[in-house]
Amino acid sequence: MSGRLAVVGLGPGDVRWLTPEADAALATADALFGYRLYLDRAPVREGQSRYPSENRQETSRARAALERAAAGARVALVCGGDPGIFAMAATVCEEIEAGPTAWRALEIEIVPGVTAMLAVAARVGAPLGHDFCALSLSDNLKPWPVIERRLDAAAQAGFVIALYNPSSQARRWQLDAALERLRRHLPPTTPTVFGRAVGRADETIAVTTLQAADASAADMATLVIIGSAETRLVPRPGHAPLVYTPRSALA
Amino acid sequence: MSGRLAVVGLGPGDVRWLTPEADAALATADALFGYRLYLDRAPVREGQSRYPSENRQETSRARAALERAAAGARVALVCGGDPGIFAMAATVCEEIEAGPTAWRALEIEIVPGVTAMLAVAARVGAPLGHDFCALSLSDNLKPWPVIERRLDAAAQAGFVIALYNPSSQARRWQLDAALERLRRHLPPTTPTVFGRAVGRADETIAVTTLQAADASAADMATLVIIGSAETRLVPRPGHAPLVYTPRSALA
Repeated sequence: MSGRLAVVGLGPGDVRWLTPEADAALATADALFGYRLYLDRAPVREGQSRYPSENRQETSRARAALERAAAGARVALVCGGDPGIFAMAATVCEEIEAGPTAWRALEIEIVPGVTAMLAVAARVGAPLGHDFCALSLSDNLKPWPVIERRLDAAAQAGFVIALYNPSSQARRWQLDAALERLRRHLPPTTPTVFGRAVGRADETIAVTTLQAADASAADMATLVIIGSAETRLVPRPGHAPLVYTPRSALA
Repeated sequence: MSGRLAVVGLGPGDVRWLTPEADAALATADALFGYRLYLDRAPVREGQSRYPSENRQETSRARAALERAAAGARVALVCGGDPGIFAMAATVCEEIEAGPTAWRALEIEIVPGVTAMLAVAARVGAPLGHDFCALSLSDNLKPWPVIERRLDAAAQAGFVIALYNPSSQARRWQLDAALERLRRHLPPTTPTVFGRAVGRADETIAVTTLQAADASAADMATLVIIGSAETRLVPRPGHAPLVYTPRSALA
């Protein structure tokens, strides 16, 4: 049995962000698993079988991929962005820990990728240029008070905040509540970035302020970055402003 | 004048992490600037001029690259990892804000890359699988008490912590002090990862505990990840253990 499971980060939408390592992991797989919209981005190759699944089927998708690898196949499980950031690598680890002992003997490879916050940050300058945190706003698997505590701690300690999963059809009030919470700690002028579908044809990037930020502008393809009190805006004639967080920090 | 400055992330050491976009930005440049060790990783091409500089010359390097772009050249300023994470993109923004008005009219492109914490995390599983922060331990540009406050806040709120710049020849005590600080808040068994020179021939990855972590094992090529209280270790026969942080969190 020579099964292998590669958990492969495709990067955000643009194929120019697909690393050579990720491309090779896709090319050498016998079977491809993944959320349908991500799997659609992997080139179709003869002799490979493809198993698309729906969003929010993370657990069954990870199990199916592990079972196939345990049966001897070379499996690629594809993710958007980086597999280790609010994506399938943690789910695979959870299922290996909970699953049959044989799964622990499998060769597991995590193939990193450009995660959405890096791509959104790059579009506007360097908002993550100093200490920052990444926080999922989904309260499907953690209680909302934990999210509130983390928002408070991050803003008070001066971290820039990248919000993953800010909104979805089933979670409509969370981003608005998070922005309200952050307004208690941060200046109204704090630069705030909404990056939607970064790298895709329908990409939109909007720079606003914490005061003016409108939660209803976000959906499940959006990543939100909220600056620290030190994040700055540099107006530029003929170009969008630059948003950046200086390398230095005051006491 | 059609100058352009691209700030290009090469990813960590392995060329298989260089994105096609970054490769194209290097190929179409007239002039390449960068820290000597990163510039050595960009392929030599006829007709391009190369301007290596030493470490810690970020400001003068950024200015030189901007001046060259303002003179009409297509300039690539190379960084290891991602340019927006403790790297040159923030320095370039700082210099544009402080510099001649003409620099604000330049075309600036930030080309994202795989940053070190993603590559180190991928080597061991999914330690950044849930909310996390990235913190530079360098107190060259921020006071140490700010770093202490951020370490306290991150550990108490349950963020996994990725430490950039944990140590250097001039900064020897900071990582030890940071680990001591974190031991106040986190269990002694908290999984801790030292990733050195990830993606290079001399890569070493060590998984230990917060209690046993030895600061003297880190240098300026090291990235350290300290788990949260929920980060787990999955032993595997014949393989290194998996380290991961579950997607769920307790109250």
